[in-house]
Amino acid sequence: MVNYCLPKGMLMRNILMHITFDGTRYHGWQVQKNAYTVQEAVQDSIEKILKERPDVTGCSRTDSGVHANEYACNFRTALNVPCENLVKAFNAVLPEDISCLRCADVDDDFHARYSAKGKEYIYRIYTNEIRNPFYNGYALHYPHPLNIEKMNAAANYFVGTHDFKAFCAAGSSVKDTVRTVRCSDVYQDGDFTCFRVSANGFLYNMVRIMTGTLLYVSQGKLSPADIDLILENKNRVTAGPTAPPHGLYLNRIFYHD
Amino acid sequence: MVNYCLPKGMLMRNILMHITFDGTRYHGWQVQKNAYTVQEAVQDSIEKILKERPDVTGCSRTDSGVHANEYACNFRTALNVPCENLVKAFNAVLPEDISCLRCADVDDDFHARYSAKGKEYIYRIYTNEIRNPFYNGYALHYPHPLNIEKMNAAANYFVGTHDFKAFCAAGSSVKDTVRTVRCSDVYQDGDFTCFRVSANGFLYNMVRIMTGTLLYVSQGKLSPADIDLILENKNRVTAGPTAPPHGLYLNRIFYHD
Repeated sequence: MVNYCLPKGMLMRNILMHITFDGTRYHGWQVQKNAYTVQEAVQDSIEKILKERPDVTGCSRTDSGVHANEYACNFRTALNVPCENLVKAFNAVLPEDISCLRCADVDDDFHARYSAKGKEYIYRIYTNEIRNPFYNGYALHYPHPLNIEKMNAAANYFVGTHDFKAFCAAGSSVKDTVRTVRCSDVYQDGDFTCFRVSANGFLYNMVRIMTGTLLYVSQGKLSPADIDLILENKNRVTAGPTAPPHGLYLNRIFYHD
Repeated sequence: MVNYCLPKGMLMRNILMHITFDGTRYHGWQVQKNAYTVQEAVQDSIEKILKERPDVTGCSRTDSGVHANEYACNFRTALNVPCENLVKAFNAVLPEDISCLRCADVDDDFHARYSAKGKEYIYRIYTNEIRNPFYNGYALHYPHPLNIEKMNAAANYFVGTHDFKAFCAAGSSVKDTVRTVRCSDVYQDGDFTCFRVSANGFLYNMVRIMTGTLLYVSQGKLSPADIDLILENKNRVTAGPTAPPHGLYLNRIFYHD
């Protein structure tokens, strides 16, 4: 990234930008060597408008293939253009699989990641026996009936402040694995069975492991009440498998309590 | 295509297969030199099951990028496997963007194209100002409000038996341009404004030109009653432009009256 110097005292705007993206062809959000990422695509695109390369801070890392109905990021610019015009200008240069939803000027100390109070994810599952070609890459194809009632009962056990160590990818270096889940449910939405979960923060692969565990509950390999035992024993091995990334959507970011 | 000989008198089954496909990466249905098509993908896949290359007859040509919620084709085989097993076997080998919905044994004289009594198409339009990355290639992005009432009034003028020459791509070699439209309407379906039309047959680009004409009506460039004049003057130039292929879905094929 290019560092650019501005005259002392020059006011830089801090812009919060909400985007939505189809994550299929990206290696997640975070810039990487030898792989194209959403962050790089966003920086490449808005550089054309800002005429200088912005350092765009994302609200969260995401895995390859994970989508976002709403993702937040922020960057600084001295460009004096109204936010609604920025939205139009960015959408004219962003790739077709990323759209800018809105921009807003925010306080100088706002940080897309550290200012976030919580996030909501949705995991979509398509249970029809026959694959739907239009859902490839946009939902897990699980061609068996699901017991939504049991899955929802299990999902409710996630609500509250717990140590989610058992629902964190083995090998993650994070120390504090306690998170507060505010909402967690399973429901049918049109063609899809959806698992929706919001929390003050998420561990690496947490939603995908939760989803794999809920599928185990539907299969009868675990009972809903087993969720409590898994949370207590804090052992990744006792939870279900990690569901694939392409069913996962970052749905919302919360910046207010 | 390989011609294979069977002993005289050996009974060949005639199988009607319904499929659905995402047409994005295909150059339409019909086999072509130097371009991959749905027909070729289907023949390549089911050859693995039938152990001989089938000559798969489609119900219709389709343009590059056009999708099918339901497409019909038929082929002959001596393979003695129940239809429900054929469906499973085909789905195991078909590419992810094509699914086999069902198979059925039909009369020996059944022909996917010539036996068809009619077809239904749907054209999807997404009118939100901001592009939705998940609809790229699956709906026309037309970022302006549409006058659905006027479009629907215009669409109703298509119903009946008319010479649709003005709604046929210039340069088409077809002689008889009279078709009978049974149903034609415009309505809102969730995020999409949809134009649905069924007829006993369609001319080349007919639905896409009808759609472009309905957009002209919404824009006030034509009135609904102008449809009658365009049908009468039979002049392609007086109709609207050809809407792009990626909003178009072959929705159903009718084999009964």
